[in-house]
Amino acid sequence: MPRPVTLFTLPWIDRPLPELAQKAGEWGYQGLELACGGDHFEVQRAQGEANYCQKKLELLARHDLTPLVLSNHRVGQAVADVIDERHKALIPEYVWGNGRPEEVRQRAAEEMMASARAAQKLGVAVLAGFTGSPIWSYVVGYPPASPAALKAGFKDFADVWNPILDVCKEVGVRFALEVHPGQIAFDLYSAEMTLEALNGRQEFGFLFDPGHLHWQGIDPVEFLRRFPDRILHVHVRDAVLTLNGRTGILGSYLPLGDPRRGWDFRSPGHGGIDWEAIIRGLNEIGYDGPLSVDWKDTGMDRDFGAEDACKFVKRLDFEPAKSSTGAASRK
Amino acid sequence: MPRPVTLFTLPWIDRPLPELAQKAGEWGYQGLELACGGDHFEVQRAQGEANYCQKKLELLARHDLTPLVLSNHRVGQAVADVIDERHKALIPEYVWGNGRPEEVRQRAAEEMMASARAAQKLGVAVLAGFTGSPIWSYVVGYPPASPAALKAGFKDFADVWNPILDVCKEVGVRFALEVHPGQIAFDLYSAEMTLEALNGRQEFGFLFDPGHLHWQGIDPVEFLRRFPDRILHVHVRDAVLTLNGRTGILGSYLPLGDPRRGWDFRSPGHGGIDWEAIIRGLNEIGYDGPLSVDWKDTGMDRDFGAEDACKFVKRLDFEPAKSSTGAASRK
Amino acid sequence: MPRPVTLFTLPWIDRPLPELAQKAGEWGYQGLELACGGDHFEVQRAQGEANYCQKKLELLARHDLTPLVLSNHRVGQAVADVIDERHKALIPEYVWGNGRPEEVRQRAAEEMMASARAAQKLGVAVLAGFTGSPIWSYVVGYPPASPAALKAGFKDFADVWNPILDVCKEVGVRFALEVHPGQIAFDLYSAEMTLEALNGRQEFGFLFDPGHLHWQGIDPVEFLRRFPDRILHVHVRDAVLTLNGRTGILGSYLPLGDPRRGWDFRSPGHGGIDWEAIIRGLNEIGYDGPLSVDWKDTGMDRDFGAEDACKFVKRLDFEPAKSSTGAASRK
Amino acid sequence: MPRPVTLFTLPWIDRPLPELAQKAGEWGYQGLELACGGDHFEVQRAQGEANYCQKKLELLARHDLTPLVLSNHRVGQAVADVIDERHKALIPEYVWGNGRPEEVRQRAAEEMMASARAAQKLGVAVLAGFTGSPIWSYVVGYPPASPAALKAGFKDFADVWNPILDVCKEVGVRFALEVHPGQIAFDLYSAEMTLEALNGRQEFGFLFDPGHLHWQGIDPVEFLRRFPDRILHVHVRDAVLTLNGRTGILGSYLPLGDPRRGWDFRSPGHGGIDWEAIIRGLNEIGYDGPLSVDWKDTGMDRDFGAEDACKFVKRLDFEPAKSSTGAASRK
Amino acid sequence: MPRPVTLFTLPWIDRPLPELAQKAGEWGYQGLELACGGDHFEVQRAQGEANYCQKKLELLARHDLTPLVLSNHRVGQAVADVIDERHKALIPEYVWGNGRPEEVRQRAAEEMMASARAAQKLGVAVLAGFTGSPIWSYVVGYPPASPAALKAGFKDFADVWNPILDVCKEVGVRFALEVHPGQIAFDLYSAEMTLEALNGRQEFGFLFDPGHLHWQGIDPVEFLRRFPDRILHVHVRDAVLTLNGRTGILGSYLPLGDPRRGWDFRSPGHGGIDWEAIIRGLNEIGYDGPLSVDWKDTGMDRDFGAEDACKFVKRLDFEPAKSSTGAASRK
Amino acid sequence: MPRPVTLFTLPWIDRPLPELAQKAGEWGYQGLELACGGDHFEVQRAQGEANYCQKKLELLARHDLTPLVLSNHRVGQAVADVIDERHKALIPEYVWGNGRPEEVRQRAAEEMMASARAAQKLGVAVLAGFTGSPIWSYVVGYPPASPAALKAGFKDFADVWNPILDVCKEVGVRFALEVHPGQIAFDLYSAEMTLEALNGRQEFGFLFDPGHLHWQGIDPVEFLRRFPDRILHVHVRDAVLTLNGRTGILGSYLPLGDPRRGWDFRSPGHGGIDWEAIIRGLNEIGYDGPLSVDWKDTGMDRDFGAEDACKFVKRLDFEPAKSSTGAASRK
Repeated sequence: MPRPVTLFTLPWIDRPLPELAQKAGEWGYQGLELACGGDHFEVQRAQGEANYCQKKLELLARHDLTPLVLSNHRVGQAVADVIDERHKALIPEYVWGNGRPEEVRQRAAEEMMASARAAQKLGVAVLAGFTGSPIWSYVVGYPPASPAALKAGFKDFADVWNPILDVCKEVGVRFALEVHPGQIAFDLYSAEMTLEALNGRQEFGFLFDPGHLHWQGIDPVEFLRRFPDRILHVHVRDAVLTLNGRTGILGSYLPLGDPRRGWDFRSPGHGGIDWEAIIRGLNEIGYDGPLSVDWKDTGMDRDFGAEDACKFVKRLDFEPAKSSTGAASRK
Repeated sequence: MPRPVTLFTLPWIDRPLPELAQKAGEWGYQGLELACGGDHFEVQRAQGEANYCQKKLELLARHDLTPLVLSNHRVGQAVADVIDERHKALIPEYVWGNGRPEEVRQRAAEEMMASARAAQKLGVAVLAGFTGSPIWSYVVGYPPASPAALKAGFKDFADVWNPILDVCKEVGVRFALEVHPGQIAFDLYSAEMTLEALNGRQEFGFLFDPGHLHWQGIDPVEFLRRFPDRILHVHVRDAVLTLNGRTGILGSYLPLGDPRRGWDFRSPGHGGIDWEAIIRGLNEIGYDGPLSVDWKDTGMDRDFGAEDACKFVKRLDFEPAKSSTGAASRK
Repeated sequence: MPRPVTLFTLPWIDRPLPELAQKAGEWGYQGLELACGGDHFEVQRAQGEANYCQKKLELLARHDLTPLVLSNHRVGQAVADVIDERHKALIPEYVWGNGRPEEVRQRAAEEMMASARAAQKLGVAVLAGFTGSPIWSYVVGYPPASPAALKAGFKDFADVWNPILDVCKEVGVRFALEVHPGQIAFDLYSAEMTLEALNGRQEFGFLFDPGHLHWQGIDPVEFLRRFPDRILHVHVRDAVLTLNGRTGILGSYLPLGDPRRGWDFRSPGHGGIDWEAIIRGLNEIGYDGPLSVDWKDTGMDRDFGAEDACKFVKRLDFEPAKSSTGAASRK
Repeated sequence: MPRPVTLFTLPWIDRPLPELAQKAGEWGYQGLELACGGDHFEVQRAQGEANYCQKKLELLARHDLTPLVLSNHRVGQAVADVIDERHKALIPEYVWGNGRPEEVRQRAAEEMMASARAAQKLGVAVLAGFTGSPIWSYVVGYPPASPAALKAGFKDFADVWNPILDVCKEVGVRFALEVHPGQIAFDLYSAEMTLEALNGRQEFGFLFDPGHLHWQGIDPVEFLRRFPDRILHVHVRDAVLTLNGRTGILGSYLPLGDPRRGWDFRSPGHGGIDWEAIIRGLNEIGYDGPLSVDWKDTGMDRDFGAEDACKFVKRLDFEPAKSSTGAASRK
Repeated sequence: MPRPVTLFTLPWIDRPLPELAQKAGEWGYQGLELACGGDHFEVQRAQGEANYCQKKLELLARHDLTPLVLSNHRVGQAVADVIDERHKALIPEYVWGNGRPEEVRQRAAEEMMASARAAQKLGVAVLAGFTGSPIWSYVVGYPPASPAALKAGFKDFADVWNPILDVCKEVGVRFALEVHPGQIAFDLYSAEMTLEALNGRQEFGFLFDPGHLHWQGIDPVEFLRRFPDRILHVHVRDAVLTLNGRTGILGSYLPLGDPRRGWDFRSPGHGGIDWEAIIRGLNEIGYDGPLSVDWKDTGMDRDFGAEDACKFVKRLDFEPAKSSTGAASRK
Repeated sequence: MPRPVTLFTLPWIDRPLPELAQKAGEWGYQGLELACGGDHFEVQRAQGEANYCQKKLELLARHDLTPLVLSNHRVGQAVADVIDERHKALIPEYVWGNGRPEEVRQRAAEEMMASARAAQKLGVAVLAGFTGSPIWSYVVGYPPASPAALKAGFKDFADVWNPILDVCKEVGVRFALEVHPGQIAFDLYSAEMTLEALNGRQEFGFLFDPGHLHWQGIDPVEFLRRFPDRILHVHVRDAVLTLNGRTGILGSYLPLGDPRRGWDFRSPGHGGIDWEAIIRGLNEIGYDGPLSVDWKDTGMDRDFGAEDACKFVKRLDFEPAKSSTGAASRK
């Protein structure tokens, strides 16, 4: 049985959920990865209103959709980050509050705890999102960070996230960090360091999104093989290298879609990622969760792309062999 | 006449200058790019002591060495950076002082003005170094920086550096920023933005170091062709991509020399850079300044490498054609 | 709304138009790029017969086809070429006449003027075709042409084509030169030189066919970015490099289909061209004209290929983002 | 008219033929390449029972299937091989008998003669299979084999196979050796040597399977061009190189599907083979026999894959040009 | 014994031979390939003056130089070419004469006969040069040439060159055509066609220059293996592809050295040619003639480059194994 | 201090040791890896004659050579192999004896024990060589070997080699298997299996020869990193892939030097191996034994190549950094 194909709603946060859900059903999706934000999912209402989650489920059910994962990237980002004005635009006003960094981080942590409880109410086993990072500015930069400074950064991360993970444990939800620039884990070895900082606790794992691994030159399948038990969720997003001698991997601060960038995102199947290898890798580690389209492509109409992506993922996801002996008899 | 081959002294800052100068002469170098730091070059003494510069020149002359460029990377870094503990270890105590960020930046700016004046005294026309950057932490990260935030960052940079460049103008010295991660300009298009932020003023140009361009996927020759009039100085440093599926371009915070990194530095000629193309590019734009070895290779003995590098650069640097018609008659 | 997919009729000049139009409609085409030749389009009859164009339009309309571009490659070739026996087989007898080169060129120029007027009558805004070239024999050959000889060649081209472009201007039709070996423009820089020779007059632009750019090693998207305002028409034709150590790029005079050639044409989607990148490039420059299949593949049945190509182009041509902000919300 | 797409039944030998035939019909196959083994095809019954072949034909016809080739890989392997315990598991008990190598080889040869006669009864013109090899253990190994030893090996092969080929000649059936490791011919030049050892007799040719050529670094199209008259049958099987620095081409004795191997098989269209080029190559040499899916992919469900493969091959196989002149008129 | 390293004098035709010979000796060359032109070698004087050749030999001997090949590219070009103004600048006035094409060709043919006789007098066995071509303008262009037109072109070539080759035969000199764009043979298959047009006569062979093969995508070693008995002379000249997406293989008529070209020449060892493979290829076919530096590099000083090239070729040219058995004993 | 460069004498077994030693000294070698065979080293004499080893040492000392490793590849091969006629030519008559396979294997094992004792007498700590393999014929072939058969093969290997390794332990010598086709270990994973079969006993390790790893597609540095404590000896031998579409990796039984092979050996520095990376890898694991030239190149004169190789290795082998902190100070 192939994996369910879901649509991650954050890139559609500007569109009301009832409208989006109807479209998603028509496009062929089997579920939604609800994003906290807009009217898609409101953590405080889920906490405070008795039937908030039930109504969401009913709305989705009308379009034959199931929620399989709850996501809260934006608030998660503020938990372990160095807070500045950029965060204000991303998080709810009641989390930003007076904007004092340490207090924002604290309120963000509490909101993530509430998100974990909301995930339980919604009946999903995975809360996905960002963590932020106190040491992102040290990446490939100058002056170099001392080993002590790095160690302190990972400890800071663990200190603020452990209480959230305690709540996850309590409510039976696992947190899946999207491995991504700007987060405590952004590549294979920083993911190792992150697990080590958390003493490998079981509530924590990864949201695997090959898009950002691709442009870093990392083979996404090697990531899967390294962390077979920690892949809690999968985003389907394509990326392409656009190096031509003048463009660079770091992208010159240019926005997505600018042809002077060294890489960009693409609608699934329209970029450079070897999806066949990824499906085989997911089969190899026994991942059976959703394949969730995180749609981003500045060169394609969004609605056209969402439908195209759904079809692409369904074509892509084939059945693994039922048993190694049964795969095919030898000559 | 080939370009002079010089040794950049910062990677040898742990070794007293008299000893280093003797070695450099024996290894075959024709000059030194003196770094501000240790006993190599002390800006305040150059300012305060009548014959400080003269004595440096005499020391060098004893080994047939000329100073062609003065560098002050570490203090330059503090001028436009977001200051934290990492800077304390890099800059003189009197610049760090009370460590209050805005005051540190101010004192760093004054030290760079003094460095420009010292360059004049030393008789060199180029001051090289870093600028720092208020927006480095926004690179490829999250949350994305707004266009306004980026604009503000470039303006901040210009505001703190313009007074230094005014002094440069006054004393007839040009400042060469090493295009480098952690700086306001780190690739081709951020270099364009930097020039634009300074309204293209003539006192400002670039120290071209292909090492960091290489691993970003940028063709160093395209950089030369884009800024033919702004290449004020050249570092010779090699780099190599070590991508193997698990390593990544961003390097996982791992120190140089760790085989889990996606790239690393190499002694010149031992990496992946196409030096032949670079020499031709430098000939094409008419660069006639020094080729300065910025030696960095954790896998090779430093003294062995310095001599090896000097020989390599001398073999490499050939004479351009005297005139296009004289290059070779057609059949 | 995707671009109309049309069929260029010249490769089918051996088949009567009524039959071809019926087939094209069945294969799914939305229009025809009528070629002057055979019974497809006769310039003199269009000029002389009152309802010639009207009847063509009616014939096409019966199969839901529209003519979007008129083409006259063969006569165009004779305008600026060095005339020899090869041209006799290509052009109408009344243009060849006595075969005296200068007179052939003059009659060819007049026929192209008539073609422009016919295009107007047919209701299309673009006349496409070849120009010929007085200096093609100088390409990569020996003896080298002097700068003066090259300049004279471009001037000769401009002298014979300017009067034709004057007529184009008069009737509101633009001429699109297919950038192609044997023509005055065959690559990116010769296209620049051609525009310069014409002082950039607006009646002149290019028919973009990536097939010939591909084997020359030119990235077709770079061509689009260089001439965003001059892409008047697009041919869809694929090509493939077949270098194996013995074959060469110049092809040893061997006919298409011979496996000893270094490159060959292929039915769209069956070659080496990155069509995804081309669609994005066309979206980037805002091209909204037809995508016209110029079918050529000696290894595939022509009728099978024409239908296959139509489907391929329709699958390929996706909607660009409606606005950059609407492409996808950021996380 | 495209070539018939058939299913090679050996990888399904564990499934009864009536069940497999029904499935194959549903999946879209047009014929079966019956393998000797299990209940698929029993050589002795074909020899002994009057209507055995007729019944097979009727069974197939019920599912619109035709048998186009008969295969006997396993017994063929024992004819010229160095016999050991591995063969016992592969061949019928009555061929293994007492297991004395020379006697096994003799009985295997007789069974292959019977297979040729059975092929005639079944109405097919090609018997496909393996030959075994007395010199396989010399491949890339040590100690090197002397020219004399190699010559003796090829002679041994010819001596045991010539009598079988005599029977083939008698009954009008050609034998197609699958070029494959472990056989007397496994690459282009060993195939040349094999033909030479047989003095080029016409009853002998090759079963072309690009899968094993691919990982050896051989271009399958070069193989087709070298032996245009000897391609008697074609297997469609894909393969992929999985070299990552640690894996090796020789595969460390690891079973198919183990990610530590340097190459592996894949369902058609899911590997690295350039099928477009192969179809063109087959068109070029005029091959009009079946395209027979030899399905092997440890990472995919077998039934899913068989249907997927049938669709893939049908999409792939296009019509060649009816004549070179008719392919497309020149501009 | 390594092959003699000689300098081809045509690229130095602006420098008097006595001066060039002295330089060549100092640079390390062992011989000169004298070019007809300037004062290097005057065919009519060689014919008319009793001791002209003797004096040349003495001049060379003073610098320990031997003439191993005589070259006459420029006049050879005019023999089979379509004559225009470009040729006037290349050939002696007495050959150009009235400039009437057919008469120029005739006089050029006679001059080549005289060149062959001069070669004999000079004591060299090879006359090298160009042939020109009546069909160069048909290459990759439009309109396509008919098979009949191509055949006529090759016949025209043979008709004008056969009388020259008759003289070669008479005087015991072989003519070596430099395979080169603009000549009757410019790649592997056109070289085959050329030999066929001459019925394979033994007086005709090739000057192998890998520079022009390289940018056409041809493996120079495949050329050597195809014509082992026809390699009469070897030029050492390097070339480099400079494709960057905008540049093209046909070079846009741009002069050597222009960075907008798709390829360019380089001093030996400074380009992209695999010289190691070429030396092995020459060893394989048993070529024991000179390695003649045809120096061309617009980015390097000519005198520097000539010396650098001589050293490069001497380092490059190693001894082949004395016998295959003696190469190295097996383990 | 760079590693000693030695010459492996087996490829020179046809040349008397006194003559070879003199040459090796002149070529610049610092030691010999003596091969058992010819007069280079005779195991039985070393065992029986009191001063045999002493005389060898004196002979070498006269040419400033030291023996650093003793090798016995040929007899080692016979220990675990499937014995046939090929072995007769390789091993001493007294080991072959009656040629009965099991007895030959037994005598070969005893000779290897004697070789270990001889190594001790000679004063070297490493005995290098081959092991043979009972399962080589199963590699990439058909029929596939069962897991049980493979397990039995490794057990057989261990059974015959453990007694030899017991002697090694007794005399303080380690045995270094050259990882090589035809041996029990031929790639990275079979090397793992081999160590496992021996329960990781310390007397056993590997002779690292990148030549055979290269053509198998294995990165030699990955091998070094996998077995840092087991690299007991290093051979310097280069190899090159010569794939051109027709050649194959398995080499068609063609002898070294035949251009139809898919790979071949080359004199060090003349092939495709990345020696820079290997030196860094050896530095990384702290290998400080000899770099022993195992010279093999059918395209180069053997004496020329031996000297060329010695120079190449000396140029190649640079000093690692004395300490990571001292490698180069950070900016």
